[in-house]
Amino acid sequence: MNKIVPPRIASGTMELLPKEQIIFQRMIAVIQSWYEKFGFTPLETPVFEIKDVLLTKSGGETEKQVYFVQSLGSLQQGHEPELALRFDLTVPLARYVAQYERELYFPFKRYQIQRVYRGERAQKGRFREFYQCDIDIIGKDSLSPLYDAEIPAIIAGIFEELNVGDFTINFSNRKLLKGILNSMEVRDSDTQTLVLREIDKIDKIGKEKVSEALVNLGISSDNANIILRVVTLKGSNSEMLQALSELGVKDELFLQGMEEVSSLIDSLKSMNVKERRTRFNLSIARGLDYYTGTVYETVIDAHPEFGSVCSGGRYDDLAGHYTKSNLPGVGISIGLTRLFDQLLSSGVLKDVPAAMTEILIANMAYELRADYLELAVVLRNAGFKVSVYMDSAKLDKQLKYADKARIPIVLFLGEEEKKNGTVVVKDMKSKEQKTVMLSSVADAVGQLLRV
Amino acid sequence: MNKIVPPRIASGTMELLPKEQIIFQRMIAVIQSWYEKFGFTPLETPVFEIKDVLLTKSGGETEKQVYFVQSLGSLQQGHEPELALRFDLTVPLARYVAQYERELYFPFKRYQIQRVYRGERAQKGRFREFYQCDIDIIGKDSLSPLYDAEIPAIIAGIFEELNVGDFTINFSNRKLLKGILNSMEVRDSDTQTLVLREIDKIDKIGKEKVSEALVNLGISSDNANIILRVVTLKGSNSEMLQALSELGVKDELFLQGMEEVSSLIDSLKSMNVKERRTRFNLSIARGLDYYTGTVYETVIDAHPEFGSVCSGGRYDDLAGHYTKSNLPGVGISIGLTRLFDQLLSSGVLKDVPAAMTEILIANMAYELRADYLELAVVLRNAGFKVSVYMDSAKLDKQLKYADKARIPIVLFLGEEEKKNGTVVVKDMKSKEQKTVMLSSVADAVGQLLRV
Repeated sequence: MNKIVPPRIASGTMELLPKEQIIFQRMIAVIQSWYEKFGFTPLETPVFEIKDVLLTKSGGETEKQVYFVQSLGSLQQGHEPELALRFDLTVPLARYVAQYERELYFPFKRYQIQRVYRGERAQKGRFREFYQCDIDIIGKDSLSPLYDAEIPAIIAGIFEELNVGDFTINFSNRKLLKGILNSMEVRDSDTQTLVLREIDKIDKIGKEKVSEALVNLGISSDNANIILRVVTLKGSNSEMLQALSELGVKDELFLQGMEEVSSLIDSLKSMNVKERRTRFNLSIARGLDYYTGTVYETVIDAHPEFGSVCSGGRYDDLAGHYTKSNLPGVGISIGLTRLFDQLLSSGVLKDVPAAMTEILIANMAYELRADYLELAVVLRNAGFKVSVYMDSAKLDKQLKYADKARIPIVLFLGEEEKKNGTVVVKDMKSKEQKTVMLSSVADAVGQLLRV
Repeated sequence: MNKIVPPRIASGTMELLPKEQIIFQRMIAVIQSWYEKFGFTPLETPVFEIKDVLLTKSGGETEKQVYFVQSLGSLQQGHEPELALRFDLTVPLARYVAQYERELYFPFKRYQIQRVYRGERAQKGRFREFYQCDIDIIGKDSLSPLYDAEIPAIIAGIFEELNVGDFTINFSNRKLLKGILNSMEVRDSDTQTLVLREIDKIDKIGKEKVSEALVNLGISSDNANIILRVVTLKGSNSEMLQALSELGVKDELFLQGMEEVSSLIDSLKSMNVKERRTRFNLSIARGLDYYTGTVYETVIDAHPEFGSVCSGGRYDDLAGHYTKSNLPGVGISIGLTRLFDQLLSSGVLKDVPAAMTEILIANMAYELRADYLELAVVLRNAGFKVSVYMDSAKLDKQLKYADKARIPIVLFLGEEEKKNGTVVVKDMKSKEQKTVMLSSVADAVGQLLRV
């Protein structure tokens, strides 16, 4: 007898029961279909990268969270690990585009739905393994700002189809605040970044603390007030544009930002994106240096506590670490594992879906096994997903199985039915059953399933 | 200026260009659709498992190939790694079924299409990261042998749809050879396993070497001859059954095996699996102790050098390491990364597929950008996958882009067309173009794409 090892999984990973997995797979399918609808091509990269390629600048916050990978042999010989698990999909994309630059075509529009890894301290809602669902549009040397409007159009399509309640895609453009800072003669790029980082905290720490922090960064309190007024501006897209232009800022970067936002708003209209789904919101500054223009953050209206469920923006240079080519881009990422976990635990995903399997053919008699297999072939050829119960078991047990597996239809074919050329079709939801001719069973099942 | 790190990937991983990735994704979609058609439910497990759970018996051949995972902190503190990457999908399945046994329903039919990891010595055709596409049917306490016939029916469906040329699903039943050995009074289970392992090598080392090896294992040369005759038997399924029954073996295990194979053959007929797609072949012994009944190996007829592209079988107990419950099952695995690599390098996948994106809307004038976005919405709503070229570029450059990205249709809408309410539709393959009314562009495009 073997010693029993208690079966369990690593903390910080998400593993689902079949009924949950089906919901998750459908969410991925929705996301993927929208990405493809907008002309993105699929990409997958290896889960691990060469350590020195992944960590182009070492010693940062990121490296602390990286998982290193090593074979037993290498471990036993005391070698340093050479491989590391990807912590996002952006670095692998940068590496990929630089590596295959000559074989690709630009603008290169790719989507990538894969898992990434971070050695987070284990706590509720923090995952060490999680899905990211990314799209990026990468240009060679330049990329029209018009592409920036595609991103919220796609996200709006996805979240409407996911049916998770009302949501708001907040957008802004970092050129606006940077331009305002320029006009205040706060031109030092590091200071500007620090200011944007403080602004990013406004929802968490409140206006006063942000104001203090800005003054500490050397901004006059008058200017701090202007900044705070700007980042808390509210109104329709056109009201926002109006209020900003009334600031009278003449800085070129600011004017460029205004032009880009205005064009983004026009394009959203052309693409039929409902205005209530988007909000021009200057507090969306996003701390990362990486972003240089449009930025996005998406919230589920009824669940602000989820935070941003999907964020991204425009960047000037994707792959400076890997190539001298200039590769500007715009992209966004849905953190699906965390979102799914939040939706599940907050009861938004309360409907238990039917099984993928649509039909269970019950086993009434061993002698009729060939009939069951033949019936399954007919139904599969008609496009249905069919399981045949092959074990000998009481009908009651077979029905309980269908119930537990959430298979919506059970077919009975016993000696009696065989003689009459019929099948009994049972609807597991209504518990109703009817006898139909064997030749019309696909129609009967189809009617029940399409209801 | 950053120092440029040459972009490259870890050896033993497969990374694809977009045109190849599209073929790969389609192959996965075909496999998945057949798995679902037969009533399997999707499952995903974390890429890493707790080391002690993954490696229930340590020191084996498997452990040498395992990749261990460790965060920087853990590494720096000199800790042993606690996590390891899965090396197959069977161990995670066993752990999963044992862990969630009470919430599952049996027979539990799951499919799992994920990557697995092995620290193989890097060489052509050996992958350190590769996809496995697994199905298993797990029973609680018992599982009807009738399920064994579903596996080749699914595999036949998949490989026909994959369109990779003729293929043969070899099958056998380990009870036959074990029964024959019993009847020869070779009853020691270890010796039986060693005999089956030798037989498994027959294609590689030839009959004589196998015969020698059997004699070395203590089998009389007469008996070795009988065994060799059996494992090299050829003929139709019924001829094979006939020849085996003429051996007159009375051993119970043998008779059980005969019964199971005969029933498998009947069921394959009921499921319309063409006999030329399957071959009852006793040399398919499969070295692993794990299998206890039916075994399968699949070869692409024109490429025997690929080896078995998909193997599996029946086992008595899935999860003995994790639970006292008895969980017999039957399953098979397609090693898709290796198969894809082989198909690609042997020229079987010679057709370059069109892009997923079906339509490119060219950019004729910045002023018409809203028209392009609106046209894209109309076409996306009609179900097409549409990209809009947003950058200002000469038409020639845009056409080259469509060509390189293999987008089959390009639409032109310039000032002239705008005035007339028309669009020019260009078929990138025939290079023909025609002018259609804006209101009928979806129809025109549909006709071209459905050809």
